[in-house]
Amino acid sequence: MSGLKFRTIHQVKGYECDLQGEMALPALINALVHVSGMQSDSLGNTEESMSELGLSWIIVQYNITVDRMPKKGEPITLETEAVSYNRFFTYRVFRAFDEKDGLLVEIFTTFSIMNLETRKLVRVEKSLVEPYQADETRSLVRQPKPLPVDNEKKAEQLFRVRYLDIDGNKHVNNSKYFDWIINTVDLDFLLNHQIKTINIKYEKEVEYGNMVTSEWSVNDQEDGTVLTAHQIINGDTIACSANIIWEKRLT
Amino acid sequence: MSGLKFRTIHQVKGYECDLQGEMALPALINALVHVSGMQSDSLGNTEESMSELGLSWIIVQYNITVDRMPKKGEPITLETEAVSYNRFFTYRVFRAFDEKDGLLVEIFTTFSIMNLETRKLVRVEKSLVEPYQADETRSLVRQPKPLPVDNEKKAEQLFRVRYLDIDGNKHVNNSKYFDWIINTVDLDFLLNHQIKTINIKYEKEVEYGNMVTSEWSVNDQEDGTVLTAHQIINGDTIACSANIIWEKRLT
Repeated sequence: MSGLKFRTIHQVKGYECDLQGEMALPALINALVHVSGMQSDSLGNTEESMSELGLSWIIVQYNITVDRMPKKGEPITLETEAVSYNRFFTYRVFRAFDEKDGLLVEIFTTFSIMNLETRKLVRVEKSLVEPYQADETRSLVRQPKPLPVDNEKKAEQLFRVRYLDIDGNKHVNNSKYFDWIINTVDLDFLLNHQIKTINIKYEKEVEYGNMVTSEWSVNDQEDGTVLTAHQIINGDTIACSANIIWEKRLT
Repeated sequence: MSGLKFRTIHQVKGYECDLQGEMALPALINALVHVSGMQSDSLGNTEESMSELGLSWIIVQYNITVDRMPKKGEPITLETEAVSYNRFFTYRVFRAFDEKDGLLVEIFTTFSIMNLETRKLVRVEKSLVEPYQADETRSLVRQPKPLPVDNEKKAEQLFRVRYLDIDGNKHVNNSKYFDWIINTVDLDFLLNHQIKTINIKYEKEVEYGNMVTSEWSVNDQEDGTVLTAHQIINGDTIACSANIIWEKRLT
């Protein structure tokens, strides 16, 4: 199954990197998702034409596999590919490659379409997805649900949804959840582990001024990796849940 | 007085914008400062060659004049120019232009050089600045000191210095102070005013884990503009102070 691809070159800037000189997750997500906007624009399927229909694409889930994160100064190729769609979801893959076309990061993304007025999900109309030449399927791609945070050993940080957390698309940028998740993890853990996979599911929108709690818990796995479970809690609802599998950094 | 210029094109991305579709200040600062890094690289004066000498450029003060902020999707030209230097400081101008070469934003920047080990400022050696062909001057450019926050009518927000506030250059990115400043201002004020000028002075470094207080106070000016005074307080020291002049948005 495959549809149209779109590629662009991106040079990783110092301000996009963490203190280890690796591209920070929010910056990587922003750069990749921007590429699907470039593809849509090139097909005449602009954000504006969506919003004229009273609709907006929303990201429901990311399943991320990391070989290694791009590094400061590295020229990388960012690719997006519309893969398939059904009545409820569209599936798109984002990839980052190094200079030798080696795959660094791959993100399988589940999108759906929201009615901007009712804020409810709507059917995926063929006319909206046809330009991407993705395959229509009857079957849903079932991504696992992230395991919940272990309440017995959880830790947490409080975050206020800030003015600049809301981007030019007038909602809290989905990359901000990675800010809240990563900035909750202990420094020592971040310095000694690197991300292998992430499964993140967006459940409910948060809004300007909300105070959200970012919870996390750590579980050592039998294969030597570590699983961290994360939840972004807004009031009494889970706005977002995620699992990250980490491996120890070689020192 | 003038030295070498360097220009690059930048397309303003949605994720770089605020909810009003205008490029957010931290994103603009990051994009502009990156251009001086590109210029330095092109002259063989890389960040790495500075750090091999045990030195780092640091930004002491920005004096920003805004005609209008760049907009989402707008292709802008970013320019930097090494202007002059003396024994203590180097002066550099950053500019953003629209497609017709109209000046949108101009930033007069005061740099100095820090010894990475002692964290103290050092003399500006001729060899470091010669490649930029800026003029040597004896005189210091005296930028006004920002007026202090009015304690009688100040408001404040608390910010924790987060892991991702530290960038690939291993210190808190100077654009983060704009995050703390802007995210402290009332939403209603932000929606109804636009920035004309900013005078921001960096006094003292902040570090990972510090809890900083962002204070601000508002003063209506006789000419109809509004002056806001800002301070980033870390413990009992002022880490950063700023004044912003705003004018009312036309509705």
